[in-house]
Amino acid sequence: MRIGILGTGIVGRSIAQGFVLAGHEVAIGTRDVDGLMARTEEDQMGNPPFAVWHAEHDDIAVTRYAGAAAHGELLVNATNGAGSIEALTAAGEENLAGKILVDTTNPLDFSKGFPPTLFVANTDSLAEQIQAAFPSAHVVKAWNTMTAALMTNPAAVADGDHTLLLCGDDADAKAAFTAIARESFGWKDVVDLGDLTGARALEAYVTLWVRAMGALGTPLFNIRLVTAS
Amino acid sequence: MRIGILGTGIVGRSIAQGFVLAGHEVAIGTRDVDGLMARTEEDQMGNPPFAVWHAEHDDIAVTRYAGAAAHGELLVNATNGAGSIEALTAAGEENLAGKILVDTTNPLDFSKGFPPTLFVANTDSLAEQIQAAFPSAHVVKAWNTMTAALMTNPAAVADGDHTLLLCGDDADAKAAFTAIARESFGWKDVVDLGDLTGARALEAYVTLWVRAMGALGTPLFNIRLVTAS
Repeated sequence: MRIGILGTGIVGRSIAQGFVLAGHEVAIGTRDVDGLMARTEEDQMGNPPFAVWHAEHDDIAVTRYAGAAAHGELLVNATNGAGSIEALTAAGEENLAGKILVDTTNPLDFSKGFPPTLFVANTDSLAEQIQAAFPSAHVVKAWNTMTAALMTNPAAVADGDHTLLLCGDDADAKAAFTAIARESFGWKDVVDLGDLTGARALEAYVTLWVRAMGALGTPLFNIRLVTAS
Repeated sequence: MRIGILGTGIVGRSIAQGFVLAGHEVAIGTRDVDGLMARTEEDQMGNPPFAVWHAEHDDIAVTRYAGAAAHGELLVNATNGAGSIEALTAAGEENLAGKILVDTTNPLDFSKGFPPTLFVANTDSLAEQIQAAFPSAHVVKAWNTMTAALMTNPAAVADGDHTLLLCGDDADAKAAFTAIARESFGWKDVVDLGDLTGARALEAYVTLWVRAMGALGTPLFNIRLVTAS
């Protein structure tokens, strides 16, 4: 399948690599390709500059947001939460229309220090704001509840014995993404939390994720929903 | 140990029963003992009236909030979130002073329908409000992330192979509660999320819990934190 990834940070890179490994055709989009490729410093998290990473992943096309969105039959929003509406606007609603848009973002606000608060919470969510801004896209909220390395490689923790949570308003989009998650990436336990208002809960969970990362001393963890049966 | 439970709903009853089964001396407190014992209808959830339940649990003392708080060396706030400050005020700060106060509440607001929103969220929590109102108590946020039946009986799901999350500002209080959780109730995996601001994350999680309950079709579940090791 043709996949368009929006965002070239560690989340976008990790997801792009995962889709390529599973045999998909991937384009990754950014605001300014020349600027991105010219960067020579590591990012704040110590990740290598994009061009260094891309030299080892040159089967991934690098293009502007609109090019990646036009390329993809399925799109992944891996941009910074605070910049997502702007990035998707640059991608162009006509390039999002009728497509699955997997929203991996979290509305993190670090302006008050660490741990972060959320810039939208409780009665609304970033995913709902994105869906409202781009009504012809089929937003599926997913992958925001774990570190990038697990999204397309659940086996990196406990043989994949943990849970992928998602929600969205379009049943077909959720079914298609769930099939990819299972078949391309090996997710065993996928739980659909219902309509896109569930993103309020999934995005709020990131505050618990940050706390648990601190307690566990690693981002390489996830939750498993454990039932009586 | 002498345990004081505040609140006579299903959470208070279940916890009271759990402590008694583990050999503790339990008093359960309410606003109006005569009114409580005179009730003959089931509650909104179909639970039997308190007097019917208590007839089978008459080793649990029934008293006013202040009596239960005075009795307990360890206290559990199992009142409705919206009424917690009022109930604790009735319990009397002098009866809370220096004691562990396990706060099981969630700030659920059903006024906008189902699923509920939270009446405090993101930058504050009910547990922090309780701690601020009663600074001499040692608030430990715990047990709010699961259904009542699991709090003192984790083995009811998957042989107890799931996680008890807690937080609080007092290390000794957390250590004492953790010891009780392990020794009296058999909790195997207890994760301390740090200071009481972690309650923002634990209380926000209830919105995910409500969604997951709907998806799983049962409240008899919990999460397990799954790591790479």
